[in-house]
This record gives sequence, C-alpha cells and structure tokens, in this order.
Amino acid sequence: MAEAKQAPAKAPKLADPMEASIEASTQEMIRRAQRLQIETVFDRAVTMKPCAIGLQGICCKNCAMGPCRLPLPKDGIEGEDTRKGLCGATANTIAARNFARMIAAGAAAHSDHGRSVAETFLAVARKETNDYTIKDPAKLIQIAPYFGVATTVEVDGKTMDRDLDEIALGVAEAAMAEWGKTGSTLAYLKRAPQPLQDKWKEQGVLPRNIDREVVDIMHRTHMGVDQDFKNLMKQGTRCSLADGWGGAMIGTDLQDVMFGSPSPLQSEANLGIMKEDHVNIIVHGHEPLLSEMIVAACQSQEMIDYAKEKGAKGIQLGGICCTANEILQRHGVPPAGNYLQQELAIITGACEAMVVDVQCVFQNLANVAKCFHTKLITTHPMAKMEQENVVHIEFDEHYAMQDAKRIVKLAIDNFENRGADIMIPRHKMKQIAGFGVESIRYHLGGSFRGDYYTLNDNIINGRIRGIAGVVGCNNARTKHNEEHITIIKELIKNDVIVLTTGCSAITAGIHGLLTPESAAVHCGPGLAEVCETVGIPPVLHLGSCVDNSRILLAATEVVKAGGLGNDICDLPAAGSAPEWMSEKAIAIGQYFVASGVYTVFGYHMPVDGAPVFRDHLYKDMEKIYGGKWDCEPDPIKHAHKMIAHIDKKRKELGIDKARERVLMDMADRQALGMD
Amino acid sequence: MAEAKQAPAKAPKLADPMEASIEASTQEMIRRAQRLQIETVFDRAVTMKPCAIGLQGICCKNCAMGPCRLPLPKDGIEGEDTRKGLCGATANTIAARNFARMIAAGAAAHSDHGRSVAETFLAVARKETNDYTIKDPAKLIQIAPYFGVATTVEVDGKTMDRDLDEIALGVAEAAMAEWGKTGSTLAYLKRAPQPLQDKWKEQGVLPRNIDREVVDIMHRTHMGVDQDFKNLMKQGTRCSLADGWGGAMIGTDLQDVMFGSPSPLQSEANLGIMKEDHVNIIVHGHEPLLSEMIVAACQSQEMIDYAKEKGAKGIQLGGICCTANEILQRHGVPPAGNYLQQELAIITGACEAMVVDVQCVFQNLANVAKCFHTKLITTHPMAKMEQENVVHIEFDEHYAMQDAKRIVKLAIDNFENRGADIMIPRHKMKQIAGFGVESIRYHLGGSFRGDYYTLNDNIINGRIRGIAGVVGCNNARTKHNEEHITIIKELIKNDVIVLTTGCSAITAGIHGLLTPESAAVHCGPGLAEVCETVGIPPVLHLGSCVDNSRILLAATEVVKAGGLGNDICDLPAAGSAPEWMSEKAIAIGQYFVASGVYTVFGYHMPVDGAPVFRDHLYKDMEKIYGGKWDCEPDPIKHAHKMIAHIDKKRKELGIDKARERVLMDMADRQALGMD
Repeated sequence: MAEAKQAPAKAPKLADPMEASIEASTQEMIRRAQRLQIETVFDRAVTMKPCAIGLQGICCKNCAMGPCRLPLPKDGIEGEDTRKGLCGATANTIAARNFARMIAAGAAAHSDHGRSVAETFLAVARKETNDYTIKDPAKLIQIAPYFGVATTVEVDGKTMDRDLDEIALGVAEAAMAEWGKTGSTLAYLKRAPQPLQDKWKEQGVLPRNIDREVVDIMHRTHMGVDQDFKNLMKQGTRCSLADGWGGAMIGTDLQDVMFGSPSPLQSEANLGIMKEDHVNIIVHGHEPLLSEMIVAACQSQEMIDYAKEKGAKGIQLGGICCTANEILQRHGVPPAGNYLQQELAIITGACEAMVVDVQCVFQNLANVAKCFHTKLITTHPMAKMEQENVVHIEFDEHYAMQDAKRIVKLAIDNFENRGADIMIPRHKMKQIAGFGVESIRYHLGGSFRGDYYTLNDNIINGRIRGIAGVVGCNNARTKHNEEHITIIKELIKNDVIVLTTGCSAITAGIHGLLTPESAAVHCGPGLAEVCETVGIPPVLHLGSCVDNSRILLAATEVVKAGGLGNDICDLPAAGSAPEWMSEKAIAIGQYFVASGVYTVFGYHMPVDGAPVFRDHLYKDMEKIYGGKWDCEPDPIKHAHKMIAHIDKKRKELGIDKARERVLMDMADRQALGMD
Repeated sequence: MAEAKQAPAKAPKLADPMEASIEASTQEMIRRAQRLQIETVFDRAVTMKPCAIGLQGICCKNCAMGPCRLPLPKDGIEGEDTRKGLCGATANTIAARNFARMIAAGAAAHSDHGRSVAETFLAVARKETNDYTIKDPAKLIQIAPYFGVATTVEVDGKTMDRDLDEIALGVAEAAMAEWGKTGSTLAYLKRAPQPLQDKWKEQGVLPRNIDREVVDIMHRTHMGVDQDFKNLMKQGTRCSLADGWGGAMIGTDLQDVMFGSPSPLQSEANLGIMKEDHVNIIVHGHEPLLSEMIVAACQSQEMIDYAKEKGAKGIQLGGICCTANEILQRHGVPPAGNYLQQELAIITGACEAMVVDVQCVFQNLANVAKCFHTKLITTHPMAKMEQENVVHIEFDEHYAMQDAKRIVKLAIDNFENRGADIMIPRHKMKQIAGFGVESIRYHLGGSFRGDYYTLNDNIINGRIRGIAGVVGCNNARTKHNEEHITIIKELIKNDVIVLTTGCSAITAGIHGLLTPESAAVHCGPGLAEVCETVGIPPVLHLGSCVDNSRILLAATEVVKAGGLGNDICDLPAAGSAPEWMSEKAIAIGQYFVASGVYTVFGYHMPVDGAPVFRDHLYKDMEKIYGGKWDCEPDPIKHAHKMIAHIDKKRKELGIDKARERVLMDMADRQALGMD
C-alpha cells in the first residue's frame, strides 16, 4: 500500500461504523479505512454539516444578486409569508425552481444515458460495429410499432415478416429523433393507460421531445421567468415524463434489444464477492455499453489465460451502482456493493481496477485509489477527474471490445502491484435477480386467462395486499441500508410484494431479501404462499435506475389485466425511495407521481422551507394526476404510510373485504394449528 | 393609491438612495417608495446579505447528501487544497459545475427566445398568421445560404431569383431543426473567422445542436459525473457557442427578417418618458413577438381614439429591459428604464399596465402593483406569477394583434382608476439607437474600398484605439449605473469606441452617452474626430442581449476587412459586463471568451473559492481560444484593464506606433492652443 496522504495534521472527527451502516462488511471496511487514515464519505458526513437553508429548498443562487437565503419558516407560518429574495421571489418560487432544476438534471442524466444507447443501436443498425448485435429480436418487434415502424410487409398480397435489419434501422432512427423532433409528442406516451394519457393531455404536459423539456426548465427557472410554483411544476412534470416514458424507457428497451431482456438468474452480492487470489475488476457507473464488453472480455479465454500468466487464479468482475445491476440482470455478475460502498471496494486493497463511466461516482475515489495500487479508470468523454492518478481510456462503441480488452489487460498487469495488506470482508449473500415485465408475466401470469392475471387475482383475493416499488440511492446522511431494509421487510411482512431497482435492489440482495427462501422468513402468510407457489422472492429485482420504466410498464400490465381499476392510480400500489440522494431520484419520483403513484421519500425533501409549495406536491398533485409526494424519514412509519395508501385503494376498488377474508383464513389456520 | 400592505411591524432598514444609484430619477423614486412604505429591490439589498460561500462558487446542492458548503479558501492556499464535499468533489469541481449550470440556464434562456422567434417565423412562412410578415427580405436572402437554402433557381438554363416564400419556408424549417438535429454541427458556426472555427474543431467544442448542449451540461454536472473542471468548461464552452453562434444569433436574424433590421433613429430614455396625461403602458421582458404587436396596437387610430374617449391625451408606450431595446431599435419607442428601475415605473403611480413576458422580471412587481391601480399582465405560457392580483393573458402568435389590442384596451380602461398621488420624474435624455452590423458598415465603411474599411483604417491609424463591447445587467449589489457609466466614459475618453447592448445600452442612453454630441464632451480627440466626421455617437446601441450576436458578427466583419489580424482574438478589442447579475451574462461571457475576446466582469465572479478553476478561466482560456475572463469591480481599473489589453493587441499587430503618432498630434494641438 502506498502511503496514506490524506491524514490531516489534527486528528479528525471520525464516523462511528455502527452508526454509519447496518451492514457488517461496510462496518469492517470503515474501521479499516480509519485505521489506515483514509477518509471516506462516512467520515465526511460527520465532519461537514449540510446547509440548513439549502436543505429546506429556499436558497436561490440563480442570479448574481444572490445567493439569497430565505429565513427558515416558523412552525405554521402566522399570517402572510413575507420572505422573499432580492427580486421578490417567494419561498414557493425558489423551492419550486430548485425542485424543477433537480428534475431537469435527473432527466438529463437518464435521457443522455438513453441517447448513448440509441446512438450505439443506430451504429448496430447501420452495421458500423460488430461488437454489439441484436440479442432480443422479439423485443425489437414488440417496440417497433410505437415508433411507427412496420414489422410486416405485403408481398404479392400476403403479409410477410419484414427484414429485421430494416426494422432495426427504422427503430434506431425513430428513437434518435425522440430527443429533438418537432411538431409532435413522444412516441412511448401511448404505452400508458388511456385515462392517464388523457390527464396528461388535459394538463398540457405531453412532452414534445426529450431535450426540449430539460431546456425549457432551465429557461423557466432563470431569474425573472416563471414565478408560479404550479406552472413550474407543470413543466417539471412534463420533463419528468420525458424521462420515465421517454429517455429512460427507450434506454431500457434498446439495452434489452442489444444485450438481451433479463430473466431471473442466481448470483451473489456484497464486498465478499471479491477474491483474494483473483484479479478483481470493479465496474461502476450506469451505462452498460462498456460494461457489457468488459463482461465478455473477462470471460474470454485470452484474458483468463493472461491473468493466470500473471499469477492470478482468474478474473473476478464485480459491479457497483447501476452498472452492477445491468450486468447482474443479464449475466449474473455479482454486485460488490451499492453507492456508499464504492470507496470501500478499493479499501480492501484487492481492487486492481475500478472502471467508471457516468453518474454517482465519487471524486474521492481518486484519493482513495492513490493510497493503494488500484487503477481508477474513467472511460466516458463526459466524465473525467482532475486528479492526476486517474487514467482516462475513452470508450468508443465502434471499437468496443478492443477498448474493453485494453482495460482488462491493464487491470491484470496491475495484479502484481498489489500490497501485502489485503482485507476482503467475507460477507456475501445469494440472490435471484433479473426480473422484468416479461418474466413477471411468466411467473405470475396465467397462460390461459391472459397476462398478469394470476398476479391480479392474488391482489384481488388479498393474498398480495399490494405492490410497492422501493428504489433509489443510499445517502451518507442516513444510516447505510437501514431504511431500505426496514421498509422492505415491513412491506413484505404485510403481504406487499416489492419491486426494486438501483441501489435499493443491491441493498436487498446484500441483506438476503432477493431469495425465494426469504419469503418464509419475512413475509406475511398471503405473500409467502404466493412466493412459495410460484417460486419467486418477495422482492423482485427489476434492474437499474433507468429500468424504473419497467415498473411503469408492469403497472400498466396490471391495469390491462383487469379487475383493479382503469388507471395506475387505481392500483393498490405505492412507491418509495428511502435513502435517496440524487437529482435523478427527484425526476423518477415526479414521473411516478405524475403516473398516478403515491411516492414516499425518506430522509428529507428540499421543500420544507416552502410549505405552500410542499402542499402542492403532497396534496394538490393527487387531484391532478392521482399520485402525490410524501416524505417520512422513520422507516416503519414510512412503510405504513404506503400500506395505508394501498388499503385506501383496496377499499376504493371494493376489494378490502377479500383482504379481510384472507386474514381470517390465516387466523383460522393458526387456530387450527396448521402453521 | 391602495393601502401599502407591505409595511412590516418594525421599521425596516432602508436603502440610502444616494448610495443605491447615481441616477436622479431612480433616487427620487426610491425616496418616494420609502415614503409610501413600499419595499423595493434597493431596500432588500440592504437587509439581505448574499451567502458568502455561494458567492465564491463553492456551495454544491447537486445532490441530497449536501448542500455542501466548502470552507472559504485562505489567501493563497498553502500546500494541498483538501477541501471537498461529501462525495469528494473539490472546490474546482463544485465551482465549475455551478459555472457550467449558469451557462446552461443562460443559453437555455436565449435559445428558447430564439426558438419562439423561429416558431413564429415558421408560422409566417406557412402563412398561418397575417399579423407578422417579412419586412427585411434582403436579410432573409443573406442568411439563407448558411442554412443550405438556395436563393436562386435555374430556369431554362438561366439563373433566376427564387420565390421568397419558398426561401422563407426553407429557412424556417432549417432554423427550427437547429435545436434538435443529429449528425452535424450548427449552421451558423461557419460565419466565424476560419481560424476560430479551426480552434473550436480542434477542441471538440463544435455544438451538435442547441438543446443537446444544455442537456449535456445538466447531465455532466449531476452528482458523480464530470469531476474535471477543464472538461466541464469544454462543455460549458460548447453550450455557450450554441447560444452566441446558435440560438441567440438565429433569434436576432429572424427578428430582423420579420420586424426589420434596425437602423439608427432618435428617441429618448428614462422614467421621464412617461406622461401624466397619457395612458402609460410599460412592456418589460425579452421576446419582441408580443411587444411588436403592442407597438402597432398603440399606434392604431382605434386605440388612440379609445384612449381619448377615456379622458387621456393619448397612449405612451415605454420599455424596460431588452423588450425596451427591441422596440427602441426598430420603432424608436423610448425605454422607461433598465432592470433596476422596473419597480420604480409602477411607483410613479402613472403606470396603467405593465406587460411582461420572460426573463429578468421581478416577482416583487406583483407586490408593488398591488399598492397602485397598475395592472400587471403576464403573457407567456412559461412565465406566470403566483400572486392573485396578476392578470395572465396568454399571447398566441397566431392571434397576435387581437391579443395585443386586448391588452392595450385593458390598460386604457384602467386609466380612470389611477390615484391622485402621481409622481413622474422629469429626467429623460435624447438618444440615437438602432445600430447593427449593416448600419456600422454604412456609417463607418468605405463604399469603394470594401466593408468596414474606414473603421479598420481609423483603428490602424490610431484615431480609434480599439473597440469595446460593454453590455449586461444591473445588479442591486452594486451602485445602480455607476460602473456602466464610469467604464464607458473612461473608454471613450481613451479613444475606445463602445458597442453596447441590453441594460448597459439603456444606461448609456439614460446618461446621455448615445448622442453624437456627447463625443465632443467625453471622447479623446481621435474618437471625437471620427464621431464628428461620420456623425455617430461614441457609444453605439446595438440592441438587446440576444443581439450580442451582432457584436460577434461586427467583429468578424472587422477581421474580414483586413489589416487587423486573422481572427477575432487578434483585434484590439475587449468586452465588459460591469454590473452583471444574470446567468445569461455568464453564457454570453463564455461565448465571447471562446470567440477570442478578453472579457472583464464587474462586481464579482462566483469562482474565487476555487483559485485553480479561476486560473483556468482567467489564464488558460487565452491559450486555447485567444480570449479569457477577468473580473474587476473598480470601474476605472476595469476600463484600464481593457485598454491595456487593447494596447497589447495593437502592439502585436504593429500598430502601436500609429497610435503614438496620434497622441503626439493631440499634444501638438494642445501645445498650439487649438483645444
């Protein structure tokens, strides 16, 4: 290990590992980092306090007469709220502007990811690359009609299948056009239930194209433009829809077309997947374009032989953040950790290379890597680091495998530089991941009676009380993993099936909730019975953060299967981001709300400084779109707010009786000693 | 006057009018507002301090682990700079992210303005509206080739002029495509000098389309993406070019096509243009689409008669901010004030209606309007206000004149509601405005020897020492108008001709610097002689903030005319925004820097917390693009930094000797008692 350069002169305040995380390997690695005098995000969370005013959403730095920091509101503001910035911007305006800009940044991140995927798919369709192909032609044929691309041709009066290459090119060009087209609205909006489309149309929030809605927000939040929080949120909604039903959804679909739609597979999760006698490569970030190639490179005999030549037993690939989810769901590559564990993977001392692309990558990785032999490799033209020890190997999708092999080789070459002080935590868990709209249909659908029928039937009869989406980040301001796990456990205990993505999904994996066996341990009797019958975990891993679009489509399938209302907002369902931290989470939250989902965030929401604006999100939204925001930091209360909403929806659907009957059945069974 | 509701219980701290502004009518109106207990921006600037950390650019609120406020740097940071946010983001990363987002917002604002103009022009080209027409077909024909639209056709082997309607449609469609096209770069980039285009290409900063560059910044500045300030600024540059040589330039050109290219005309400026016996309508904002129609409506006999019917002697229209500049340069409608005077126009008690669209509009206007009879009318779908006394009349370019008349009628009907306590300051000044690339050619060009020759010749012989662009906002954190006026006077005193736009141009008008007569009073002998000879003011009003593109094109014309180098960065020229406040100013500054201009901002720059990043802007940029940033709050030093740069460029061009000779001439003349 190289000398630890980060130790400041005075002994700094350090994080208490037991307070920082509920997860054992994380606690071990925090201790190790502190022993080695390497600062991590957990320590910084202790030494740096967040700005109280910014936290409440009422700091405006959108012009140079500011930054204007409004006073914090008194409890239940008495009389008129006279707080304002120099220009007169109210707390509502400032908080709504900040909120809208978070949506803009989040949507930009997802949509740019989708754009990269679409660009690569266009290269595939144009035969400009051989490294990528079409692995799921069925999905291509499924999505083509939404883009107005015919999948059949008339030849001599007969309907024939159209050439797949032609379909691919048509879809690729139409998909690319979604980012900048004029004179229409997004193609995928028509996948939503009709009543939802009608609401969007009535509100005037149908996105015109993807990029424009981001730009519109940036203009509107400029000094002296939109100063009506309702109007600001109308555009915030439009932009979020351009993410969820636009950029992100196109990203997911074209990834499935190129890399294959996921289907359930077994893997493992946590830092313990790293191997002392292997070359350990960690891929971290979001876009699977490069990581797909790295998976293939790591599996190539050429690279395995090279690793052995260099004294390793093989190559262990692991993922962090959504890159982890992408290569997990399609290849079973195990996640080494979630967002807050990224520094810790290097602190093992056994990470030969960490390969990053975009989003959620700590700049401090460079400082941590400097203390070890680890090569930190940035790969995306859009994401470099200023530190000199960072290697930049720019990935070009036209030379994808070549670039991937170069990176893997660099890692292998670095194996011999590893220091003597290695510590890989032993903790890891088995998991089943890789669910999707299609696999849920397969596992929970009914082949005779139509899609998603069994799922709906079990919701109607009350075995499954409802559906929850639990998604999103970790946040060093909350105890690592605690909220995710407490909420998920409370939900499944109450027979609510959980769909999960992103770092929440990794967390569920690490804590053993992604196994069919966990159903018997943690679930209420109804959900346990369903899981046992069909052999699924009570928590279904649906992929990365862009794959939240899968949840939207799964919800739409539930609506279509019938018996649970006509729109997503009718479903006994709720969403949650317990430990959110990124602007993407706000974009996702807003498109869920605008798609009719009651969405509860943990930790805090940057709106408390503007109570009227907060009410608009927490109350008014429901009248407009059927979904609304909420915030609850206490994880048990958080889960029960979701359950209460689910029960309200059950009642509205008239299926609350069924639920009671099931509970009776359980009590009966218990009384009869059958449990 | 309705009762003043804003007075708080305790007597608030108030602005000292003499410290707040150097301008007499502004001082009078601040006093009046305080007497009436109506709070203005000047008072708020006294009671609310800006956040010191945000001011230095080192507050990061781009994720919910923050807001992270870095400690302020010690003077000349000793040793390693260890300050970082929770994720490890350095001061450089944070300041560069914030700076890039300012560019994104500024570019979005200008470009969205341009998009509205392009959309309206498309409606004109498609004959969907009769209210707008093509008033400058010569300009249309001039710009068509850049969009790849032919202006001639071959008929029977002969070259004929192409039908104007066809050209218009071609240009309109091609212009619209600039916002979202794929696979190429912006059409107008090729208007720049070739060496500059080569630099942009080498740096990889040729904008792909307008919207994408904004979205790219929003993605890149998301938590954990780009963490290299140089890479961030590369994209900042690309986005700024998409503004200056993209959205803004298209906006200016198509406005000229539809509303006529400006040519010099006489008008007046300041609050004194309002008339006690007239219906006073103030238009405020940026897009001239509506204000053009309001000008026409106010001039219609129907409306004049209606005003008389209601007891007024007529209708007095005045402008504020860039709307003022738009209708000034094309119709001679006088500006009633600049950015910081917007509240004051209402405080006269004589403003029947203030009609606003987008950008730089105070939300506090609603609170001020509530204290009087003034109707505050928002007109843009993107810009509403939450206050209930604000009237929203949404402007639709397809019913432009109808909407305009409705608004004017509302103002006339409001005349009778005016209170007894009226106070219109008497101060106003004569001014000549409406210069442009074409009129500079006419006034300073040489018809025999080619475009811009006389201008270049006078620069080479030293009568004109150099060219300065002085542009931008007011800022309540600096003394209103003082920096603009001190800097401009110091420049022209030193024989530097000044091109001005935006609120700076209004300021120059208010203070009497936009008259040919001012040359004899304020200019050095060389510039005075030129102004006298060709009959122009020493300060040329080039329009609104989007019209800064006129300065880019004028600079390019100077390069083309020869004798002053091969690129904009070779010219003895400099730019300045003395009292900037808006994110647009940062976007403009960056595209000037990236076009080769030494650009000095007054007040402060939000980069002082990150000295290495600041050096990148203040030093490195020059090596890359030939232009660089600087900041100097002291107006005299500010002007002399610009003059020193101009002299450096003169020396590099070998024309410093000519300049010395002219100075000798002056000294000679003085010695001979000729002055």
